[in-house]
Amino acid sequence: MDKPKSIGIDFGGTSIKFGVVQGRAIIATGERIDPKDYPKPDQLISAIAGRVKKFKEDHPEIVAVGVGVPGFVDFPTGTIHNLTNVVGWRNIALKKELEALTDLPTAIENDANAMAIAEWQLGAAKGCDHAICLTLGTGVGGGIISNGAMVRGAQFAAGELGQTSIDYNGRKGNYKNPGALEAYLGNNEFAADTLKDYREAGIEKDITDCSPQHIAQAAENGCNIALKAWDGFAEKLAASLATTCWLLNPEIIVIGGGVAQAGNLLFKPLIKHLHGQLGEPFKNHLRVLPADFKNDAGILGTAALAIVEYHAE
Amino acid sequence: MDKPKSIGIDFGGTSIKFGVVQGRAIIATGERIDPKDYPKPDQLISAIAGRVKKFKEDHPEIVAVGVGVPGFVDFPTGTIHNLTNVVGWRNIALKKELEALTDLPTAIENDANAMAIAEWQLGAAKGCDHAICLTLGTGVGGGIISNGAMVRGAQFAAGELGQTSIDYNGRKGNYKNPGALEAYLGNNEFAADTLKDYREAGIEKDITDCSPQHIAQAAENGCNIALKAWDGFAEKLAASLATTCWLLNPEIIVIGGGVAQAGNLLFKPLIKHLHGQLGEPFKNHLRVLPADFKNDAGILGTAALAIVEYHAE
Repeated sequence: MDKPKSIGIDFGGTSIKFGVVQGRAIIATGERIDPKDYPKPDQLISAIAGRVKKFKEDHPEIVAVGVGVPGFVDFPTGTIHNLTNVVGWRNIALKKELEALTDLPTAIENDANAMAIAEWQLGAAKGCDHAICLTLGTGVGGGIISNGAMVRGAQFAAGELGQTSIDYNGRKGNYKNPGALEAYLGNNEFAADTLKDYREAGIEKDITDCSPQHIAQAAENGCNIALKAWDGFAEKLAASLATTCWLLNPEIIVIGGGVAQAGNLLFKPLIKHLHGQLGEPFKNHLRVLPADFKNDAGILGTAALAIVEYHAE
Repeated sequence: MDKPKSIGIDFGGTSIKFGVVQGRAIIATGERIDPKDYPKPDQLISAIAGRVKKFKEDHPEIVAVGVGVPGFVDFPTGTIHNLTNVVGWRNIALKKELEALTDLPTAIENDANAMAIAEWQLGAAKGCDHAICLTLGTGVGGGIISNGAMVRGAQFAAGELGQTSIDYNGRKGNYKNPGALEAYLGNNEFAADTLKDYREAGIEKDITDCSPQHIAQAAENGCNIALKAWDGFAEKLAASLATTCWLLNPEIIVIGGGVAQAGNLLFKPLIKHLHGQLGEPFKNHLRVLPADFKNDAGILGTAALAIVEYHAE
């Protein structure tokens, strides 16, 4: 039997992307929507529903829809509490409204969880019952799979790896939480710290020379400051991941986002630091891998979520 | 219908305790066994099986057996990898051997997980699908419930709250893991740190004056050093628990072990520190409570595990 088709919607602050997905393949896309063109939530919801209905006309066998949003969602009801960077989206019953307009079952999920679902259902963590997925970018997000299911927690707020503490006396994160991983490893913070290292060594650089891509390039050219920056990045990430391993004993850690493209510059010291603080029973079994998906992770993950939720095998 | 009966066995390094359990009630106990009286594992297993068979004669309606051990267990096969403080117990197929001798289905579990099961099935976390249970004693152990199931992980090594890091540059734990919570909050470490605080303040004390009980008593008498010691204890514990909350978004945290008996000296500053580093969505829903069970947690938890595993509702 053919694999079922579903629609994945990656709802970002500056662009909403659509895809009709079958297995790992995006078989149709539509024009993106810019949320700023629809200042009222109702207008934007109508525009999204219009796209969904068009897809359904072209592919009547579509079984369900998934939407990944940058914010905090009540998963069972599909109500959005609030969105980062999208004005006016507070307490919006997105699932209910979309279902009424499209007549397709619709699941709403946090975007970091959606990326984790992409890797778990279709990507690097496929077939794993215990997995940690994280995304390293401007922010640090994550999603957790345990006992073969997404860990959403009591208020559907679980999986926030960026908020885990690596230093109880450390830098404050977005919630005044000391030592928040994101306060060290977000792209801007990593750039600022590396710039400081350069300047302390008497090397004049600009902050724009300190993107992860620039630091990776410099490290590949043998620059010691850049190499040390990656080792420091890996050391801090390892502290948070080791804690996560002690709590959850995953079989795999999948790392995505722009920083993961540094490849061995990140993964080699990360695995070294991680192995240095885990127990024998499980450290040798643990796999640490880059994510399979990049820009398509949001579409693929939400489409896969729609299948998990609404398509009985 | 009467609640089912099961046997709980709390296998400690210096004493093995037995109980026939029905619901929350221990309806029969037997004489304890000292593991040192049976230097070979086979002898000790025979002695344990003898007790089980005697209980079964007296209570033929017993449905299953649970055993909690101080060590690392392969849960599905019930094979013990190794035990802390019990010589010669390496790679012992305890489940298989006990089942052959007693003809009762038997589950083997790590002792910290067994305590978590007691609180989850019968105690403070009863009815909760997302719970964190930890025990503060010589060591710091824990157990995690997520999505209504125990989180054991890929090699059944999950739930090790004592090994979570609160400082990536901090004190080393048992696995050379920097900032291990246990390296600060274990009874001996807490005593040594408080003794140091006393001496720095010019107050002569002995390490034996710095047990959790002594520090609690001093704090109740208004001693500022003791009050500060509890605040520091709570601050460090909060860092680890906040991380755990960001990852798992539990509805409840249950704290047991001797230190939990400090009551408000611990819980008040703990909740203050914890609230200071969690997000709005869930911090107001989070409950932090002392454990219901003390010395009986091991027997009750393993007996409850036996019911969970082998008694279909």
